[in-house]
Amino acid sequence: MTATTTPHITISPESQEQLFRAARTANTFTDEPVTDEQVRAIYDLVKWAPTSMNQQPLRATLVRSPEARERLVGHMSDGNKEKTARAPLAVILTADTDFHEHLPSQFPPAPNAKDLFADPAGREASARLNATLQVGYFILGVRAAGLAAGPMTGFDAAGIEGDFFPGGTHRVLAVVNVGRPGPDAWYPRLPRLEYDQVVSSV
Amino acid sequence: MTATTTPHITISPESQEQLFRAARTANTFTDEPVTDEQVRAIYDLVKWAPTSMNQQPLRATLVRSPEARERLVGHMSDGNKEKTARAPLAVILTADTDFHEHLPSQFPPAPNAKDLFADPAGREASARLNATLQVGYFILGVRAAGLAAGPMTGFDAAGIEGDFFPGGTHRVLAVVNVGRPGPDAWYPRLPRLEYDQVVSSV
Repeated sequence: MTATTTPHITISPESQEQLFRAARTANTFTDEPVTDEQVRAIYDLVKWAPTSMNQQPLRATLVRSPEARERLVGHMSDGNKEKTARAPLAVILTADTDFHEHLPSQFPPAPNAKDLFADPAGREASARLNATLQVGYFILGVRAAGLAAGPMTGFDAAGIEGDFFPGGTHRVLAVVNVGRPGPDAWYPRLPRLEYDQVVSSV
Repeated sequence: MTATTTPHITISPESQEQLFRAARTANTFTDEPVTDEQVRAIYDLVKWAPTSMNQQPLRATLVRSPEARERLVGHMSDGNKEKTARAPLAVILTADTDFHEHLPSQFPPAPNAKDLFADPAGREASARLNATLQVGYFILGVRAAGLAAGPMTGFDAAGIEGDFFPGGTHRVLAVVNVGRPGPDAWYPRLPRLEYDQVVSSV
């Protein structure tokens, strides 16, 4: 890890490396378990990051049993099956479209907040947007715990939803493998777009 | 800032506070400008966080001119107008639905990656999902630069898209005010869902 001081960035160089610069998407893992206590610590960190009206629609399903893992693997794209089968922990991250039921307790400044989400289509769009923000926070939280994340979007979403969330109120956004990186855990670093390809001024 | 050591989280307590625990959504700002160099440093940090197939659909439009700021304010919800008018910097964060044009350079392992996104509906869904992940990374990057973010989703999206992105290839996801927090910058801290309301095991 080569941590260098960067102008304008004020978190420690070590944190920059661990969260962003040196962190990589892992494709293999060691056998070391990921404990519920680690997941709890990750949640207790990332829960503070912001969502619209504090709506917090993200839900995380830890796929712990061998039987459930086998079902999950069956829904993954071919290229994601083996790593999902072997990771110490696989987590299904979903948007709960009934998040608004919690708004009376979670957003007390607006007692009518729940009513603003009476329309199912608008509610689903808001759940997807805000839960996806929270997926980003969660990935960085895994890294903040010294673990490697292997986030994936290659799966049969309808299959996972029908199998794991038959109530119909969850939309799967990502499946994330979590653990300590194993041998040959990552591919070569890919490029990134240049600043001027991404940022413009008006 | 009361930085305490947390079990299982291995980034520094100060970084935990700055990014998550003590950081807050700012509603007022000082007059101190946010420079392009600061935005560049933020991008050079958060660009490393992962997206599906390295697609990087996020685009950031810095609303610098008074004329453009006035137009933006006109599209914001009433409760977001004044703070968007007064912030040192307002940034429009969009998903570029033509992100796939960059895949030949950004995802060389799969020379046919661009062809996987020939379908406009699938491409837009992927752009929205991955750019929203990147909005989450960007918000934390603002905080990593010692600045406060004021992310907002209350605006007329079609109005912003028609006014600022007439080409039709951008979907606005969030507008984020950026600066140093001003007087009474934040509301009281809101609660968060309990671990058992968010995380379950199967």
